[in-house]
Amino acid sequence: MDSKLLRIKASQLKDRVVSAEEAASWIKDGMTLGLSGFTRAGDAKAIPYALVDRAKTEQFKVNVFSGASLGSDVDKLMAEAGIVHKRLPFQADPSMRRKINDGEMLFVDHHLSQTAEWIRAGVIEPIDFAVIEALEITEDGMIIPTTSVGNSSVFVKHAKNVIIEINLAQPELFNGVHDIYEPGKQGQRSPIPLQHVDDRIGTIGIPVDFEKVRGIVFTSQADSPSTILDSDSETELIAEHLLTFLRAEVASGRLTNKLAPLQSGIGSVANAVLHGLIDSEFHDMEVYSEVLQDAVFDLIDAGKVTFASASSITLSKEKMAQVFGDFAKYRDKLVLRPQEITNHPGLIRRLGLISINTALEFDIYGNVNSTHVSGSKMMNGIGGSGDFARNARLSIFVTKSTAKNGAISSIVPFVTHIDHTEHDVDVVVTEQGYVDLRGLAPRERVPLIIENCVHPMYREQMRAYYDEALSRGGQTPHVLEKAFSWHTNLTKNGTMLQKKEQLV
Amino acid sequence: MDSKLLRIKASQLKDRVVSAEEAASWIKDGMTLGLSGFTRAGDAKAIPYALVDRAKTEQFKVNVFSGASLGSDVDKLMAEAGIVHKRLPFQADPSMRRKINDGEMLFVDHHLSQTAEWIRAGVIEPIDFAVIEALEITEDGMIIPTTSVGNSSVFVKHAKNVIIEINLAQPELFNGVHDIYEPGKQGQRSPIPLQHVDDRIGTIGIPVDFEKVRGIVFTSQADSPSTILDSDSETELIAEHLLTFLRAEVASGRLTNKLAPLQSGIGSVANAVLHGLIDSEFHDMEVYSEVLQDAVFDLIDAGKVTFASASSITLSKEKMAQVFGDFAKYRDKLVLRPQEITNHPGLIRRLGLISINTALEFDIYGNVNSTHVSGSKMMNGIGGSGDFARNARLSIFVTKSTAKNGAISSIVPFVTHIDHTEHDVDVVVTEQGYVDLRGLAPRERVPLIIENCVHPMYREQMRAYYDEALSRGGQTPHVLEKAFSWHTNLTKNGTMLQKKEQLV
Repeated sequence: MDSKLLRIKASQLKDRVVSAEEAASWIKDGMTLGLSGFTRAGDAKAIPYALVDRAKTEQFKVNVFSGASLGSDVDKLMAEAGIVHKRLPFQADPSMRRKINDGEMLFVDHHLSQTAEWIRAGVIEPIDFAVIEALEITEDGMIIPTTSVGNSSVFVKHAKNVIIEINLAQPELFNGVHDIYEPGKQGQRSPIPLQHVDDRIGTIGIPVDFEKVRGIVFTSQADSPSTILDSDSETELIAEHLLTFLRAEVASGRLTNKLAPLQSGIGSVANAVLHGLIDSEFHDMEVYSEVLQDAVFDLIDAGKVTFASASSITLSKEKMAQVFGDFAKYRDKLVLRPQEITNHPGLIRRLGLISINTALEFDIYGNVNSTHVSGSKMMNGIGGSGDFARNARLSIFVTKSTAKNGAISSIVPFVTHIDHTEHDVDVVVTEQGYVDLRGLAPRERVPLIIENCVHPMYREQMRAYYDEALSRGGQTPHVLEKAFSWHTNLTKNGTMLQKKEQLV
Repeated sequence: MDSKLLRIKASQLKDRVVSAEEAASWIKDGMTLGLSGFTRAGDAKAIPYALVDRAKTEQFKVNVFSGASLGSDVDKLMAEAGIVHKRLPFQADPSMRRKINDGEMLFVDHHLSQTAEWIRAGVIEPIDFAVIEALEITEDGMIIPTTSVGNSSVFVKHAKNVIIEINLAQPELFNGVHDIYEPGKQGQRSPIPLQHVDDRIGTIGIPVDFEKVRGIVFTSQADSPSTILDSDSETELIAEHLLTFLRAEVASGRLTNKLAPLQSGIGSVANAVLHGLIDSEFHDMEVYSEVLQDAVFDLIDAGKVTFASASSITLSKEKMAQVFGDFAKYRDKLVLRPQEITNHPGLIRRLGLISINTALEFDIYGNVNSTHVSGSKMMNGIGGSGDFARNARLSIFVTKSTAKNGAISSIVPFVTHIDHTEHDVDVVVTEQGYVDLRGLAPRERVPLIIENCVHPMYREQMRAYYDEALSRGGQTPHVLEKAFSWHTNLTKNGTMLQKKEQLV
């Protein structure tokens, strides 16, 4: 017998093996797919590739739902092939982004914890095919996921058909790392029993109705690595300011040196900030996040983090080789959960997380734009930042104070798109410093943000805006006709900097 | 013995009775007060009045924290006396609003579920005096609240001193209606065990440490009634559209005729919308809200609502006389809880609420402004709308499509303040119609909102804005330099209507 068939332990399913081309041929124009995959980890690969191939000779479009962004160029290839009608809840690919912003495909930007509720309640298109990457199928009918869980369990439960991609290149030692929990219908639910970061509350795999398994394909393509940048002098300063803030929290008695379970968004800045904890006095920390990047494993290696819970593991090329090559070392310190559990508002609040996410821009009152360049053009999506920021014990947003060599100030009078309101943002940090906004009225916030977060080259300009706004009064003073002038100047002159003589 | 002393069943406390003037004299400049009171119900009255009186001869300022808005003119009198330094988390008084917008006092606008977390964690100023209205003090040391719970239990637990106002005018039959639950510290919490609207999970009163009870005063002033307006032809149309939407949900199988637990914001529109359910086919409904207004009792009388849970009961003068005069009839159909339980994100999601709140304005993409007139001037505050909108099964926002005889369109290109983002708004309703935004990309939303919600007199103008925005592209097309032009026109010309020739 072909040794790879050993990965199909349920004997009833051994005859379902097909080629990716054949499985892809079942997918028809107008259908909706639920693909495994969360931040480049554990994504279905073979079927999407086969679909892209089919598009060379056939016109069709499908809706593509996933956990979060897909790696292995799946989003890029599908977007370029023009086969995606609607995409949700997140993407992070430049080609797909272009198609979205050009209006050539639809994108529904959704809180990552909430998509499962929509699928369970039948709010959005029903899933015709769930396509799920797996390590194996157990004898009793469970799909063992690979490097992510994402929305896979809810896709499998509610899809009409399931295609399983058994990926022989994924580390087999991930078997046992997952904890699959199904909350049930709203209104008929028990409390989710999770009380500690390392609690296990579910099963090690995704139960699947054998009747629905249309096909099983084999693949052996590794996840694509993350592309995070090394820390630089500015991200190091951001990390330093964050440490100063955390030390003040410990000094006040609100935290201990074990801090509280940490969540960190994806990206280079967040990764650099977590790295900043390695040489700190903080110890025995826990991570309760949606994705684990390189820094979490460095913190485990350094003995700083004792346990990490997430929905996916997304690593750089070097780190992937190290961690997956020595996975036994990490296995009992990790759990991977469905994203509605990692990002659950009630659990985030119960555990009292410290949440660190990246802002694209924020304004003088603490409103945050995480998604839209100049208010219109989508970058990636809100992802889990809303789930965490609203419910965390401490909701921290970080960003460099300027971009494009100073042509852009990341702190503006009025953000051009709001993903996180002033009510949901506790602390803002740039390389200039930080402000703890908790308990401050809007008028108390502005001078602190200007002096501690805005880059010096923009401070005078911001003071002038605020002075004019103040002269008009209000709880949240603004000059509406100038609120977006920094952005319109950028479009017109290539910089947000106004000329000296324009200052009041 | 004075018969009112029978209300103090704990014998150790009988000697703590003092005059309101004496108790108020303990409160010093710079102190922080935690006052009972939620949407005009169960507010501390005697001590605030005595403080206002003291302000005639003495200069001082205090921070005033409460559950939500205070009735009995307490906010008005304190604001006019100039004794409030900082107010949180909500207010709804015109005089106080004026002081806030003039920058003469500070207002921290806070999600109503979250203030308890801040107090418990020591994030904001510690409470020097909790002043709590009560029906009685039990033998074993529990304060029985009156017509609201609000933040009273967390104030009592964390305050340095407690003053109890026993109000002889409040209906004694409220004794037993309350359910006080303390979640404990974040990170050390068990799941909150509430699974059904009528579950009782706590105690009937607020436990108090006798050592902290500095004084007990007697008062006999009834709550001030609400001032909701009768429904009119427009609110009736809004209610009708909402019924049409709910019927479609039932037809789709997503709901039954019992609907799901209802939450409704405070105010005339929300009250009128709930009234619309009386003559509908929906039955055996439950309410899980923060405040119960007149309509809920009409629904109970009509046999339509079987149980209602909230943090307060706020009624019109006539309804108050009827309900409080015949309270035995309602007593076993009601429970009053702390606002962190009524508004808890995890519980709202677990129960799967249908949430109906009022928007001040919303925009073509579904972002909602609940608080700020023209982006700067505070009306009341976000209240619980964020707690509910983010986590409900169905988050519905209602508003009339115009205000001030058509000079203002409640649907605008870009809202001037965002309390609820496009991610948190499922359905928008005006007297023109409704749009179900769930699963729609931004570009799909706009034409539907224009044709179904915008008043006909503003549709052409809105189409022109959107056409120009579309020509610039993006996921969420905008023309930033014109995004607030409707509001600046209003300031300049007294109307948002542009002249015909200004249209593109």
